[in-house]
Amino acid sequence: MGTAEAWTDLTAVVRDVEALEGALGLLEWDQQTMMPRRGAAGRGAQIAALAKVLHERVTQPKVGDLLGALEGQALDEVQAAGVRNLRRSYARATRVSPTLVGKIAEAQSDAFNAWLTAKQDSDFPTFAPKLEKLLDLVRERAAVIDPAAHPYDTLLDEFDPGTTMADLRVTFARLQKGLGELLSAVRDHAELPVYDHPFDAAGQRGLHREVLTAMGFDFDAGRLDDAEHPFSLGLHPDDVRITTHMYPTDLLSSLSGSIHEGGHALYEQGLPVHLRGTTVAKPASFGLHESQSRFWENYIGRSRPFCEWLGGRIAARFPDAPADADLLYRSANRIHPGMIRIKADEVTYNLHIIVRFELEVMLFDGKLTVRDLPEAWNARYQEYLGVTPKNDAEGVLQDVHWSSGAIGYFPSYTLGNLYAASFGKVLETEMPDLWERVGKGDLLPIREWLRTNVHQKGTMKLAPALVKDVVGEQDLVENLLAYLWGRHGALYGVKRPV
Amino acid sequence: MGTAEAWTDLTAVVRDVEALEGALGLLEWDQQTMMPRRGAAGRGAQIAALAKVLHERVTQPKVGDLLGALEGQALDEVQAAGVRNLRRSYARATRVSPTLVGKIAEAQSDAFNAWLTAKQDSDFPTFAPKLEKLLDLVRERAAVIDPAAHPYDTLLDEFDPGTTMADLRVTFARLQKGLGELLSAVRDHAELPVYDHPFDAAGQRGLHREVLTAMGFDFDAGRLDDAEHPFSLGLHPDDVRITTHMYPTDLLSSLSGSIHEGGHALYEQGLPVHLRGTTVAKPASFGLHESQSRFWENYIGRSRPFCEWLGGRIAARFPDAPADADLLYRSANRIHPGMIRIKADEVTYNLHIIVRFELEVMLFDGKLTVRDLPEAWNARYQEYLGVTPKNDAEGVLQDVHWSSGAIGYFPSYTLGNLYAASFGKVLETEMPDLWERVGKGDLLPIREWLRTNVHQKGTMKLAPALVKDVVGEQDLVENLLAYLWGRHGALYGVKRPV
Repeated sequence: MGTAEAWTDLTAVVRDVEALEGALGLLEWDQQTMMPRRGAAGRGAQIAALAKVLHERVTQPKVGDLLGALEGQALDEVQAAGVRNLRRSYARATRVSPTLVGKIAEAQSDAFNAWLTAKQDSDFPTFAPKLEKLLDLVRERAAVIDPAAHPYDTLLDEFDPGTTMADLRVTFARLQKGLGELLSAVRDHAELPVYDHPFDAAGQRGLHREVLTAMGFDFDAGRLDDAEHPFSLGLHPDDVRITTHMYPTDLLSSLSGSIHEGGHALYEQGLPVHLRGTTVAKPASFGLHESQSRFWENYIGRSRPFCEWLGGRIAARFPDAPADADLLYRSANRIHPGMIRIKADEVTYNLHIIVRFELEVMLFDGKLTVRDLPEAWNARYQEYLGVTPKNDAEGVLQDVHWSSGAIGYFPSYTLGNLYAASFGKVLETEMPDLWERVGKGDLLPIREWLRTNVHQKGTMKLAPALVKDVVGEQDLVENLLAYLWGRHGALYGVKRPV
Repeated sequence: MGTAEAWTDLTAVVRDVEALEGALGLLEWDQQTMMPRRGAAGRGAQIAALAKVLHERVTQPKVGDLLGALEGQALDEVQAAGVRNLRRSYARATRVSPTLVGKIAEAQSDAFNAWLTAKQDSDFPTFAPKLEKLLDLVRERAAVIDPAAHPYDTLLDEFDPGTTMADLRVTFARLQKGLGELLSAVRDHAELPVYDHPFDAAGQRGLHREVLTAMGFDFDAGRLDDAEHPFSLGLHPDDVRITTHMYPTDLLSSLSGSIHEGGHALYEQGLPVHLRGTTVAKPASFGLHESQSRFWENYIGRSRPFCEWLGGRIAARFPDAPADADLLYRSANRIHPGMIRIKADEVTYNLHIIVRFELEVMLFDGKLTVRDLPEAWNARYQEYLGVTPKNDAEGVLQDVHWSSGAIGYFPSYTLGNLYAASFGKVLETEMPDLWERVGKGDLLPIREWLRTNVHQKGTMKLAPALVKDVVGEQDLVENLLAYLWGRHGALYGVKRPV
């Protein structure tokens, strides 16, 4: 079979898979936004049936044959990226036996249900054996996917290909130290204010739509809906769904949720749609995806110029609400070390992640048993954040990730913050009137810059290489720390030690 | 392979197909209710990919093997029905070659696009050759499915298995004659009033929800949304979606749309969910489905007691709106022969259908060419309804059905009216306080009666046999005519000739 023919056949498979992934995405979106209460059982069966079809499609021997026919041939850049991506996903999908897939699915379901109860009762010991069993199977899966690699590297590869455990150990240790210094410096200073005022949901929704439109989210190619937990989901670059949650008296939390998901959504809308069918019209990694949401949420959305523009928009829509830019800016950047990751500010957030990363590595290095997790968790929280959970519900049991077997996922959140700060530094250089524009709500040029430098690149390169193309040989940790010290040092009136 | 084992394997296939059908249904629902404008291309690919998967599942040779292992064995009632249903769908799906399926899909797409333009320009001649080509392929498909049968019977079988062209010829001829007499009788009498008053969409929606709730529609197992064209769609008996269209000054039209779709939806919610996986938890036919919507829309929803209850609900919600029961009753039952089927009253509606049935049969008997359709259409409209379309857009081009190759579909609408009138007659006997209950909005016992007698039967029997179980050896045509004369004769002050 000739190269052209094999490539054509392969893109037909990919197109089919992409279309079915979009259908699966709709089942999930609807489940969290529209589905009536009693639809859950039927929906579970629909998702399982479609996931099975997708697995069949991805693992069909034809894919292996076509990859074999293409590897070693003269390929263009897109073809080379496509073959690399597919070889990786094909290996991951085919090396794991259906028996092991079934065992993992069962253990996930057991662990998830045990976690729900354990979290409610703050009772880690009932969850521990289920988690232990699940982790054993996850370890086994990693070993069959790549017997030569460290299992944690194999797990990381699922979310952030190109990033290794060794990289993260070094990066996160430096970051933890630097964040510790910032936290110590601000700890004794007066707390910043809380922005607290009642807003009706319809009014907030109007403001969210206005902000998303200014960011360049295309409502002809997407929607905004309410959901219990905010998320975004691309069914296709021309159909990207955002959800948000309205808090009646905490407009900044609601809005930063929409801005965050809007950042994810712009990435999905900006993917190179003309490359559908090649695997290149996909996000490059979880960390890079997170860099887009964090860039908009924090770097732009908590900046002083953004708060000035936002104050004007609040004043125009809610004449009775406080709209002072300084109040908004100070409230949006309040540092408050706490127990719960998803409520954390942008400084301490990374410490929550580093705790989890270190514990995951210890578990996979055999240096920690599941039973000892709560103690190790609490000790690290005291050391890094200066707080100790009063029980496991607000400690080691707070997140869903481990109960679903997602090990190696957490680092992507902090990778996102690292990438975002460096993107910001480069953008400030390339767009000298950046903050002037932001102050006027003129945000489209920012989307264009991200589209050109990130979104349109799809999976042509692995995320670390893509980031290097944009920011060069800069020190990502130093850039993040400098940005955080710059903003929060000024707000709290503290100086970075030299 | 033993019977039990073969049956278990077969139900696994059916469960899988049912789940994937639910997923496909969601893609279609979302397309008409939620999807952003630019999502259309991606959605088309998703629907095509999933339809292809479904076709693969339904035609897999394993199904034929399992049916072979089960046929002739000792089966219980449900198994027997399941094997009969699957043999029928398997034969229909496997006898048509992929090549012919592809040709038909292409011809459908061509004909549909040509129809859109032709309808806009009222230009039948540009549509004619596309329709001709499509009908040739539909004829070819009928011939390979069952070479021995009349092609029109094979097409009918897709929508209303158990009903034949010969039955319909006799039934529809009698009905046309009877309806003609009623129409002649009312023609010279003063027209009934039009209910015309402005209502805001949110207020109408509240009323629709109240009426649907009274009918027993379970909002925990379904939704009501807005769409350009009202429809209902069951993704699962516990997840049934209704859509409606709000007319700003025509509350009765909006509401009767919701009641109609609500009738369909109650059928879907009432299917025997414990028999999922057997093919029995499905509606028995298009005609029977339509009987449920028509029963609620017309028999109950346009009755005098219903209008009394409705008047009270309107008065409570809209203090300024006219709410006189007599006005509502007279407006809801206005006979007005017109050109457009979907705007027709319940008397003339059936004449629109009979015209289409007769023309379809002539086309398939070789007694009419596509080119001569407009003339034959217009002549029949003049003869049966006393009106002549001023152009083909409001004549032969008005409906989408033929352009999508759906031949044999139209009769189901009038079958629905025939079944509904007879169900009503039996219900009146079995529930002596029926109209007293309706006058109080106490509609749940009606749903229970339909659930027991129709919904819960699923596909245990073909629709005509199921109807006979409920109504006995009654004359369906006579029952429909008697009901229509009873209501409209009184309203118009005319008597049925003896």
